[in-house]
Amino acid sequence: MTTQHVIATYAIETSFPLAQAAEVLAGEQSTGTFVRVERESDDLRARFAAQVESIQEVPLTGSSALPGFIGDPSARRRGILRLRFPLDNFGPSMPNLLAAVAGNLFELKELSAIKLLDLELPSAFADRYAGPGFGVEGTRRLVGRPDGAMIGTIIKPSIGLAPSELAEVVGELAEAGVDFIKDDELQGNGPSAPLAERVRAVMPVLHRYADRTGRMPMYAFNITDDIGMLEANHDLVVSAGGTCVMACINLVGLSGLEFLRRHAEVPIHGHRAMLGAVNRSDQVGIGFGAWQKLARLAGADHLHTNGISNKFYETDEEVLASIAAVRTPLLGLTPTVPVLSSGQWGGLAHATYRAVGSTDLLVLAGGGIHGHPDGAAAGVASMRDAWRSAASGESVDDALDRSEALRRARELFGPVRV
Amino acid sequence: MTTQHVIATYAIETSFPLAQAAEVLAGEQSTGTFVRVERESDDLRARFAAQVESIQEVPLTGSSALPGFIGDPSARRRGILRLRFPLDNFGPSMPNLLAAVAGNLFELKELSAIKLLDLELPSAFADRYAGPGFGVEGTRRLVGRPDGAMIGTIIKPSIGLAPSELAEVVGELAEAGVDFIKDDELQGNGPSAPLAERVRAVMPVLHRYADRTGRMPMYAFNITDDIGMLEANHDLVVSAGGTCVMACINLVGLSGLEFLRRHAEVPIHGHRAMLGAVNRSDQVGIGFGAWQKLARLAGADHLHTNGISNKFYETDEEVLASIAAVRTPLLGLTPTVPVLSSGQWGGLAHATYRAVGSTDLLVLAGGGIHGHPDGAAAGVASMRDAWRSAASGESVDDALDRSEALRRARELFGPVRV
Repeated sequence: MTTQHVIATYAIETSFPLAQAAEVLAGEQSTGTFVRVERESDDLRARFAAQVESIQEVPLTGSSALPGFIGDPSARRRGILRLRFPLDNFGPSMPNLLAAVAGNLFELKELSAIKLLDLELPSAFADRYAGPGFGVEGTRRLVGRPDGAMIGTIIKPSIGLAPSELAEVVGELAEAGVDFIKDDELQGNGPSAPLAERVRAVMPVLHRYADRTGRMPMYAFNITDDIGMLEANHDLVVSAGGTCVMACINLVGLSGLEFLRRHAEVPIHGHRAMLGAVNRSDQVGIGFGAWQKLARLAGADHLHTNGISNKFYETDEEVLASIAAVRTPLLGLTPTVPVLSSGQWGGLAHATYRAVGSTDLLVLAGGGIHGHPDGAAAGVASMRDAWRSAASGESVDDALDRSEALRRARELFGPVRV
Repeated sequence: MTTQHVIATYAIETSFPLAQAAEVLAGEQSTGTFVRVERESDDLRARFAAQVESIQEVPLTGSSALPGFIGDPSARRRGILRLRFPLDNFGPSMPNLLAAVAGNLFELKELSAIKLLDLELPSAFADRYAGPGFGVEGTRRLVGRPDGAMIGTIIKPSIGLAPSELAEVVGELAEAGVDFIKDDELQGNGPSAPLAERVRAVMPVLHRYADRTGRMPMYAFNITDDIGMLEANHDLVVSAGGTCVMACINLVGLSGLEFLRRHAEVPIHGHRAMLGAVNRSDQVGIGFGAWQKLARLAGADHLHTNGISNKFYETDEEVLASIAAVRTPLLGLTPTVPVLSSGQWGGLAHATYRAVGSTDLLVLAGGGIHGHPDGAAAGVASMRDAWRSAASGESVDDALDRSEALRRARELFGPVRV
């Protein structure tokens, strides 16, 4: 028995006094029934129940109350609540941790909003879970890019390419000088393009390129599938000389990622597909800040954070907070590489670098590379020129003066973010 | 290659014309980038992109727009959208299906609401996934209750009982005549009460009871944990003579449940903890209707649906729709047992039975049994009397006339629902 605790931070809303709503939430962690029962002593409650650590009232967001809320919607208050849970209740087990900090509490009708924002985890979790096996350094070593932003891309079109076409695309991208290529999350293991056929099509192209140049781009094969197939899918990639596997974390589950990690001999590219289902609402679900800690603990070497000026719903502020979160040290684990994607091109490098202050990033451009007016090589050059310029302290104007590839990219994707 | 399809039904909201928003959603399933790229032919789009099957405008719900939505919130329209996805894109793989029907689409800024409501799955899924191994019939056989509602309870307090206390509680509940007992979802495998100690404490009590009476209540040990421990946890229960394991489906993941199913020799009690994170909002996430199909396919023998007059946020209408959904045949799978819980007691039996029309249910009462004024045996009697009366077509008044246990329950938990 230890005295370690987990502290969970929530945004809540209620028409009850905030302190009372907090007690309902904490109490759901103890007896979980609607009447006090035998053997439920004050001592038991004191030892096992969650305790309110702090509550701070904050302004309402303007979003409507969750369905099923009991109370006067116009009397709602919003608070940031920190609850303390005894680790001994669940032990350093991610699934059982979630039962406590993210279980039935989303169903409480006393709350008109309840979102888990952050988790403070004790060191026992790092004793049980190894975290990333490669991270920033291991990925840089495998792609042969000791410094500077790592530049990557996604196979486009996402689905529908025959193996021979896929081989062609990969050949072009390798020649273009890209560090990293990934399958789309839509490209799993369907009959139209089974993983085994993709591996057979892609790896010889990469090997021929590597034999000639001494460098092999990292290709993240999407091995997402039933748990019982993850090990075999991984082995298929590794035995063909592949250097990365991609898993859609929410689709195999955080537990599925952790299972894969115990077997993995190459970096795991962690895709966040389906995260919006729990992360987009400000009224319910699990925020990226909490989720990314679990994904890192479970072993994600690379983790999608989105990028600024993206085509999805997140603001630049939210994206930058996500990148910062992934870069924040966690329990001594190997650092995970933030993966910036969606609508990315060279013209976002300076603004991103100014905010992030590091090139320990994997920046993915799909259209920004495939769709460059002068082709993929110019697309990669425009990205690399822009990131090198940004990291050296140059202005955007200097970068545009020096790089024709960036100027040409601007014609199609502009304006440049300053 | 086949011509099978998956049809996914969504509630969406947008300020764009509904048909245009539907095309954005469908298009995200094909190229997934912001410019049209090489090799993305019209033919490829026609073969692989999702197709709009139908859109029907429905009234707005009054809920606010999701964060990051682009458009005039006052110009929003709501629609029920059915999209058709070629099965060959992903094959009958649940994780890869989810990438298509529930992946990045929650992040689209053109949508102010996007919730997956239902899935129509082709038979290929039933060829790959076995579904429940026991279901209604297998559970009835194991608990020795060939007809009538199965009456169960949850160990209370949820956490904090020492093994000797747990054994006492289980002994009392067995003597009370209950069919089924389950661990709380908060009771995982922590150092305060490890699974192995609980099995050691509980099973001898059940065996002694069974030796004497010929009937053994089914005890659902919560074996939720890392994927790599599920098989060993299951084996621990089975080798001690246990007849059920419980898994928190969202905490091990649907994929984790499917992994467990391939190994399981006893029914899997599927708990839905954390479902509220994706199910509660009417603006984003995954509805119970879609989720329960995947949980059944993955092998849940029992599935929590909540009950009427529950202590959580769901309305009776929603709960009854969930019970009906679980009872609707799915691809020829063995029928899953709906599990009614939260705030349940005998006085809800007639109203529930009238709506459901079946006793192929597992009705769990925590406080309703442990907290009965005359003790657990009277609690069980009050539930059984009420359900027997309801199923025989008697009125509530008749039931109250005949059953003192139900009358006494009403004093504490009333009024009775008619």
